[in-house]
Amino acid sequence: MPQWETYLTDHAAAYQEELLEFLRIPSVSALPDHAEDVRRAGEWVERRLTEAGIEGVRMLETGGHPVVYGEWLHAAGKPTLLIYGHFDTQPADPLALWNNPPFEPVIRDERVYARGASDDKGNMLVPILAVEAMLKTAGTLPINLKFLFEGQEEIGSPQLPAFLAEHRELFACDLVISADGGQHDEEQPSINVACKGLSGVQIDVRGAHADLHSGVFGGAVANPIHALVHLLDSMRSPEGKILVEGFYDAVVPLTDADRAHIAAVPFDEAAYAASLGVAVLVGEPGYSPAEQLGARPTLEVNGIWGGFQGAGTKTVLPSEAHAKITCRLVPNQDPAAIADLLAAHVQRHITSGVTATVSRLPGQAKPYAIPADHWGNQAAAEVLEEVYGKAPYYTRTGGSIPVCELFQEHLGAYTVSYGFGLMDEQIHAPNEFYRLASFARGRVAYCKLLAHLGAR
Amino acid sequence: MPQWETYLTDHAAAYQEELLEFLRIPSVSALPDHAEDVRRAGEWVERRLTEAGIEGVRMLETGGHPVVYGEWLHAAGKPTLLIYGHFDTQPADPLALWNNPPFEPVIRDERVYARGASDDKGNMLVPILAVEAMLKTAGTLPINLKFLFEGQEEIGSPQLPAFLAEHRELFACDLVISADGGQHDEEQPSINVACKGLSGVQIDVRGAHADLHSGVFGGAVANPIHALVHLLDSMRSPEGKILVEGFYDAVVPLTDADRAHIAAVPFDEAAYAASLGVAVLVGEPGYSPAEQLGARPTLEVNGIWGGFQGAGTKTVLPSEAHAKITCRLVPNQDPAAIADLLAAHVQRHITSGVTATVSRLPGQAKPYAIPADHWGNQAAAEVLEEVYGKAPYYTRTGGSIPVCELFQEHLGAYTVSYGFGLMDEQIHAPNEFYRLASFARGRVAYCKLLAHLGAR
Repeated sequence: MPQWETYLTDHAAAYQEELLEFLRIPSVSALPDHAEDVRRAGEWVERRLTEAGIEGVRMLETGGHPVVYGEWLHAAGKPTLLIYGHFDTQPADPLALWNNPPFEPVIRDERVYARGASDDKGNMLVPILAVEAMLKTAGTLPINLKFLFEGQEEIGSPQLPAFLAEHRELFACDLVISADGGQHDEEQPSINVACKGLSGVQIDVRGAHADLHSGVFGGAVANPIHALVHLLDSMRSPEGKILVEGFYDAVVPLTDADRAHIAAVPFDEAAYAASLGVAVLVGEPGYSPAEQLGARPTLEVNGIWGGFQGAGTKTVLPSEAHAKITCRLVPNQDPAAIADLLAAHVQRHITSGVTATVSRLPGQAKPYAIPADHWGNQAAAEVLEEVYGKAPYYTRTGGSIPVCELFQEHLGAYTVSYGFGLMDEQIHAPNEFYRLASFARGRVAYCKLLAHLGAR
Repeated sequence: MPQWETYLTDHAAAYQEELLEFLRIPSVSALPDHAEDVRRAGEWVERRLTEAGIEGVRMLETGGHPVVYGEWLHAAGKPTLLIYGHFDTQPADPLALWNNPPFEPVIRDERVYARGASDDKGNMLVPILAVEAMLKTAGTLPINLKFLFEGQEEIGSPQLPAFLAEHRELFACDLVISADGGQHDEEQPSINVACKGLSGVQIDVRGAHADLHSGVFGGAVANPIHALVHLLDSMRSPEGKILVEGFYDAVVPLTDADRAHIAAVPFDEAAYAASLGVAVLVGEPGYSPAEQLGARPTLEVNGIWGGFQGAGTKTVLPSEAHAKITCRLVPNQDPAAIADLLAAHVQRHITSGVTATVSRLPGQAKPYAIPADHWGNQAAAEVLEEVYGKAPYYTRTGGSIPVCELFQEHLGAYTVSYGFGLMDEQIHAPNEFYRLASFARGRVAYCKLLAHLGAR
């Protein structure tokens, strides 16, 4: 057993306490009131990297939520890896559905329940602890490392493109390893080879200059909620085929090989539906659920509001109605072009008596893909097979990891997805959790990956 | 000049102060937190009736918000009138659109701005002050009076039917005079001869057991917001024709005489649209705006909500979406039957992968109509012509006054609409106001009506 492995075992209890401490910081990047908490989380990461033996640790300003940098560059002649993760979290609402306050972590059944536990605080802490174990025991690392931990992933990393463009040299590397991601399940490893892009808009529909009495004015004055539901219903068939004019034009069709690759991953539709509490799965006709989820673009209304939401009855004809929409994109859809198509659709289908404005939401991302047989993926596959005893699946995710595309554009480096979250961990939803088993196995898997890539 | 008229003039300033005091009580009947304020408003009315010289004043329990009763029954051989009004108000949100806090009344340009100023505190205070002026000067009244002021009109008077059924004798009368209503404009009086009924439902759509990540799960899992907008869009054409199966079946068609009657009231479509800040009016094809507003049934979504409503982006596939709908009904539509049709429509049109429940909202009301030539209307018309110098229009309102139908059912009495609000006074909306001129003219008009009916 390597020395680092003993070290990791000896420190398991302490690491668990540290994870809880990290999770207590409500670093919600979407809510302006929590900007200082995002920064506090970054300071926590700074301190933790320094304690692990990482050098040159510092917080870098982006104009928005900060980035934390660190490095260890003493492996002469070896490649340089850039390890990536994020210390910000999604908002926690609806709070009423949580079993514990989202920023007061609770351990039940060997799982840590808290907002950000899986996405991404638990996962991003793993490589820091792995590196600490190697440095505190061997005093050295088998490969050169840089770290980039950001505080704005959950809002789509708005300042990161300009920041990376400005710091190309600082972050120059041969390969990025992303600690933001997951494995197929507790027994089966997987390597993600594609993730979807993202494009979002908010639609604001306005009618009369003020809320009106629905009895006195209803029947002759347009209701912005009716106009909005008509617009939204016109954008997608009930099954999920997107009806926005031009939406599919740029999509690279799935090849037979792509479809075979996706079909190789077992997918139990009935069990999947049952796990989510729905009677049936529904999606774009002509594609399997796995294809719909991983390889076809989607359009989802993330939120809608207008008029009276309180208890009882308020007979109001509201003056405004609003919706937030995000689309997940596949190669070669462009986020800005999709936002333009949505705006054009709205203006084409808006009904009389109201006006609609369409504004882009933060968080646009281009779709990303890495060859399954890239050398970084090969190394990850060999380590995962050793740790799990099974060869990994090559999977696609419907989620967006905008930085993969950014690293490719600004650093010329591919990103290997190497995180240890699992699909059922309620990320972005109430009662998010992270398995303590993943937290431990991930540390071992990171030490082995560094050793493997250093020996290449 | 009658003595009561001098008395009213002398007390105008004091009455104005009393109205402000009444308006400071936030008696919002829809919000449980304000139940005690509704009761305080009732106590204020009790005290004020007693000061006016009304006898037997007392608060009566209904099981919900209370009723205030009073009487003066010393006009032997004369008919008995029941004067009606309500001391509860609509909710005040959205607060941000108010120019002053809604329960801190402000006088600007001879108008009192506050929630409830026009609907109905200003209007219901008018007959109390008129009666005071007659009693304090003549020491007697020309007719027998009873008063029924309620605290639950804005939530549809849920306990009033059982309450009236139980107190038929106490409230027995020859005619009801409702102080909840208005005139056509500052120069033109009007008498309302019909008001619409009301039937409301809430639709709750549920999908997965929890909010999900829209990237990971979007595309194969039904989105309750999409299901809800599809349902709502299926209920009404963009113009306003209601598509709920069976909705129009019970409607008594408008006769040519009805349509001529409605057309006799001037209606400037362009000016009406401009006053509301909309480019065009929209409504059910085949009917004029005045017919749509006054004489055709409507369906309005009063509120909609689901998913993320905060700033920025939250890539969530929500587990729930909700809407509140109210329909305005015309003779002979039945509120319960309409709610059943809405529920059946929802179950017929709900899409796969979600479930929907439909529950009735409080505030159901049957439609109501009174013959234009009823003796109560004739007396009101003669007084209004004397006060305004013009004969009144006979109008219909799209609003619901459930008590009119209740009084007919339980007391066997018609209700004459005799209030002094005006259409532009923003009732149920931000910056509601009441004209001080109406407040004064109404008092004179009530004294004259009592004298007229007493001399009949």
